[in-house]
Amino acid sequence: MTEIGLLEAIYSTRSMRRLKPDSIPDETLKKIIDAGVHAPSGSNFQNWAFVLVQEPEDKRFIRDHYLETYQKLAQLGSIPAMDDLPPYQQRMFAAAVHLAEHMHEAPVILLACTGTDFPTYAQADNPRSITATLHASIYPAIQNILLACRALGIGATLTTVHYFFEDELKQRLDIPQDKEIAGLIPLGFPEGRFGPTSRASVEEVIHWGKWGKKQG
Amino acid sequence: MTEIGLLEAIYSTRSMRRLKPDSIPDETLKKIIDAGVHAPSGSNFQNWAFVLVQEPEDKRFIRDHYLETYQKLAQLGSIPAMDDLPPYQQRMFAAAVHLAEHMHEAPVILLACTGTDFPTYAQADNPRSITATLHASIYPAIQNILLACRALGIGATLTTVHYFFEDELKQRLDIPQDKEIAGLIPLGFPEGRFGPTSRASVEEVIHWGKWGKKQG
Repeated sequence: MTEIGLLEAIYSTRSMRRLKPDSIPDETLKKIIDAGVHAPSGSNFQNWAFVLVQEPEDKRFIRDHYLETYQKLAQLGSIPAMDDLPPYQQRMFAAAVHLAEHMHEAPVILLACTGTDFPTYAQADNPRSITATLHASIYPAIQNILLACRALGIGATLTTVHYFFEDELKQRLDIPQDKEIAGLIPLGFPEGRFGPTSRASVEEVIHWGKWGKKQG
Repeated sequence: MTEIGLLEAIYSTRSMRRLKPDSIPDETLKKIIDAGVHAPSGSNFQNWAFVLVQEPEDKRFIRDHYLETYQKLAQLGSIPAMDDLPPYQQRMFAAAVHLAEHMHEAPVILLACTGTDFPTYAQADNPRSITATLHASIYPAIQNILLACRALGIGATLTTVHYFFEDELKQRLDIPQDKEIAGLIPLGFPEGRFGPTSRASVEEVIHWGKWGKKQG
């Protein structure tokens, strides 16, 4: 395989929510995680762990809780009603519903964990800082994982719906209480194709020096 | 420039804490941010903003607060005493002290912001989920930024010390109260060289199916 360029990978990595059931070789999974652990972490503490869920009953357990939560959130209005959305968003949410319903068919569900026993700042009374430092020490690894998946032809999506059933999930998989499951990422060969993603232009999101200050 | 490969970039991106004062062209800064905005975000909401601080007085303001906080944390024991550390960690913390002292000499200090007006899950009473979804929608962009910096020869380090003076910083730069500054990232041409980073092996961090289950 010719290695994909960094920017090409960054510009063509998108969430893949329709996955084939075909299994992923262990060597591929290790490569993906190895990309993850090369991300930075607070004080280089590397306090992460990656649970690769492949047992059908465990995946079904996740699917059932995920789908139930997703439906509750939709009822609460936390997920917008389809009719209120422009077509491209309708497609995204339709794919999200498909993922919720078919989660257990993905060959692997990756749980990216971080540890609440993080030492830095522990003595300082600032919960926001502690949470941010924890998250700043796992989501960069997850982004490396998503990019490595792209390079290896694996579809993936970062989801956080599991925060609504994190305790049950930890108990089911023997994950210690002091760990936090920061991302639930179904992995599988994708039904769709990778391709350029579109985003708002940098002009809209850059502030030059002070908030609201636009260039030239 | 031949584009760097994805995996080569991932394996050779490390925190660069000793930076030259030479300025970074605007076009380079835009490329870096453009890599960031191609990251995923919750419901593709793209609720991020990037403040590029270049004014000497503003950088000095940041340095003074950052250094004061860093010294306080060291006194509290949140940052370990040098003598207790192995040599490679001593080098890292020596560089961190250098960064704290010389922060204002970096040509650019990038503030990566996310918005607390995130709509998804807003109705659901689960603060942990809301915080995680916010952070899952900015730290992947920051990782893309760190990788793009690597590709473009710019040194960078993700820091979170500013959470201890976030309100003062927002006020100084007119950043709205409902924004959260998730990362403070000094940017500059590096004194040191990029090269392979070493990490714990994947065997140590992968759990196959259940916590603690090792392969074979």
